[in-house]
Amino acid sequence: MRFDHAGIATDDAEGLTELFETVFDALPVHRETFDGMDVRFLDLGNGYFELLEPREGGAIGRYLERNGPGIHHLALGTEDIEGALETAREEGIEPIDEEPRQGAWGHDVAFLHPKSTGGILIEFVEH
Amino acid sequence: MRFDHAGIATDDAEGLTELFETVFDALPVHRETFDGMDVRFLDLGNGYFELLEPREGGAIGRYLERNGPGIHHLALGTEDIEGALETAREEGIEPIDEEPRQGAWGHDVAFLHPKSTGGILIEFVEH
Repeated sequence: MRFDHAGIATDDAEGLTELFETVFDALPVHRETFDGMDVRFLDLGNGYFELLEPREGGAIGRYLERNGPGIHHLALGTEDIEGALETAREEGIEPIDEEPRQGAWGHDVAFLHPKSTGGILIEFVEH
Repeated sequence: MRFDHAGIATDDAEGLTELFETVFDALPVHRETFDGMDVRFLDLGNGYFELLEPREGGAIGRYLERNGPGIHHLALGTEDIEGALETAREEGIEPIDEEPRQGAWGHDVAFLHPKSTGGILIEFVEH
């Protein structure tokens, strides 16, 4: 697997986009409304920031209320998301998504429960 | 800049190393004691997990007490860490480290204050 992106919960995707482009050379390459969020991908060359700004509550809205803005999850890229989920289950990891589902940018995604992975919310993603 | 690593605060670096190698194909490539921590780098091919297990309190020990285990910081690689700090200052970002200092694995590092960067603790790293 490879690093794919860091998912960032924010209430100011526009401001972070400008800041991260200027300071980190992170190029805005994709934007869509997904699952009630303004979602923006900024390209670092070997992976992305995924900025997630909720428009209408939802999971990220609740996350922001509880934790404030910051790193929400890490996504690892795989070419076999079904096999990755199977290996995770075999090692005792509890998936949040038992089957891959469509995520932002049309990718297949599946999240793993952070209690099984050292407190980190991990997303498998297959482009 | 490019993604360099995700820094993970943990109280079980040994267990996470085994799990992440099996489930994420993340290869252990470096281990050292640094700043009172057991520090391990696991290679994803295009970046690393940096596992940080405190041996004697310190910043990561306090982080674990407050937040529990999880993602502690994101590190971005640069070939000009002094220039990166200068650009960050020009954009109103407050550095935690005004000058680069030696971090784990002998790299030059400088952290930025998360209040300036959307709640994310960002590390600049120059190999």
